[in-house]
Amino acid sequence: MTESNTADVDEEYADLGATTQEAMDIAETSMDIVRQFVPDETLADRFRQKAVHSMGDIEFQHLLQFTGTDDAGNADDAAPIRAGARAVNRETTIVTDITMSKAGVTGRGHNCEKRKAIGNGAELANETGMTRTAASVLELDKQGVYEDAIAVIGNAPTAAFALADCIENGTRPAVIVATPVGFVKAVESRERIREVAAEYDVPAITNVGRRGGSGLAAALTNELIHVASDVRDGEIDLYPEGEQ
Amino acid sequence: MTESNTADVDEEYADLGATTQEAMDIAETSMDIVRQFVPDETLADRFRQKAVHSMGDIEFQHLLQFTGTDDAGNADDAAPIRAGARAVNRETTIVTDITMSKAGVTGRGHNCEKRKAIGNGAELANETGMTRTAASVLELDKQGVYEDAIAVIGNAPTAAFALADCIENGTRPAVIVATPVGFVKAVESRERIREVAAEYDVPAITNVGRRGGSGLAAALTNELIHVASDVRDGEIDLYPEGEQ
Repeated sequence: MTESNTADVDEEYADLGATTQEAMDIAETSMDIVRQFVPDETLADRFRQKAVHSMGDIEFQHLLQFTGTDDAGNADDAAPIRAGARAVNRETTIVTDITMSKAGVTGRGHNCEKRKAIGNGAELANETGMTRTAASVLELDKQGVYEDAIAVIGNAPTAAFALADCIENGTRPAVIVATPVGFVKAVESRERIREVAAEYDVPAITNVGRRGGSGLAAALTNELIHVASDVRDGEIDLYPEGEQ
Repeated sequence: MTESNTADVDEEYADLGATTQEAMDIAETSMDIVRQFVPDETLADRFRQKAVHSMGDIEFQHLLQFTGTDDAGNADDAAPIRAGARAVNRETTIVTDITMSKAGVTGRGHNCEKRKAIGNGAELANETGMTRTAASVLELDKQGVYEDAIAVIGNAPTAAFALADCIENGTRPAVIVATPVGFVKAVESRERIREVAAEYDVPAITNVGRRGGSGLAAALTNELIHVASDVRDGEIDLYPEGEQ
């Protein structure tokens, strides 16, 4: 416990996952450090801060990409954030690629169903030899699960490629968070997501480079949930210029 | 599918989690790339490779630390690996800090029980204000769960500090994998783990720097499982010099 113990923690907490005093102190101190190095001006900056926080790397702020337009047709960096926060507040489904990404998404601050793709499409994977996650995405898409969903791909490049195919075939997730990590296809899978995101107006938050992973995907998804919570609390107006 | 489709995949797979042809191809190609940049000489090199693979960053090979002695009293870099692989093969419990770390540990190639700390010690957390993960570790330790366990801390610095306290108080995990990430206490928590690991001869695999996380912890733990599997298959002799 620290001296900040006496502060009104409910109003200053920096992380929806932090529920004890020590955890809230750590989250707050941590974000204070991050804000020394990452701008704190825009909604997108919140995601740059969160990425830096979850990756433990100041320079990661420069590796995020915001693509696509929100439902009001705006295409600024905050467009996928507004689209994602609105999706959270209309309680759409959050679908992750693997168990690990799902486990990282907080259960607090929203009423969205959390699902994972992996575990579906086993027959398709067996028949074709494609990865289990890619087959899972195709199978869930056949069931309509990705339509208007918050689609989170934290780990598997092939799942991101499969999701991109689904979008080309007509599926429209509310927002995509895609941060697969690694040396084979990860970079390309996120490029492909950005291409379909731009072409079909599907808002997406991704990163460039080989790094990424389930922890980053979960952190960015949790920040969508956090923004949605701030919208409900009246702390953020997603249309501050009255442009709706 | 690629041309390597015809190869004997059972003998060359690079990742216990890869079960389909495409997944094994990707894992194999990925590790081939990693091996261009990371030495492939020692058991510790396998962990440097795995860290690089899971972090998507070649330079991460230099950030791992191997501490403590194995049960034969050897204190080389491979000591915690031998200790961990033996622990896997005598089917000790794998205890992670949070759900996400647990989700990343493969269920294949071992018969260890997988547990997570989080979800225990709620009363202690409420009473003291300490983090839920730290309270969880203390509570499980009281139940004897960490004795001879494979103790994995992927996320929470306070859980690592709590585990270090338990070791000071007499608990002896079989091996520790600790890679908490972030700007507050993460670096210090791993330093503390290395201190108690050295002082009380508890083998530990950790990293330096602010980076890390559940994905890294799970990858390193999975490599312990993979080494254990190779030992069972007779591909690795943990005492190649006959020194047992």
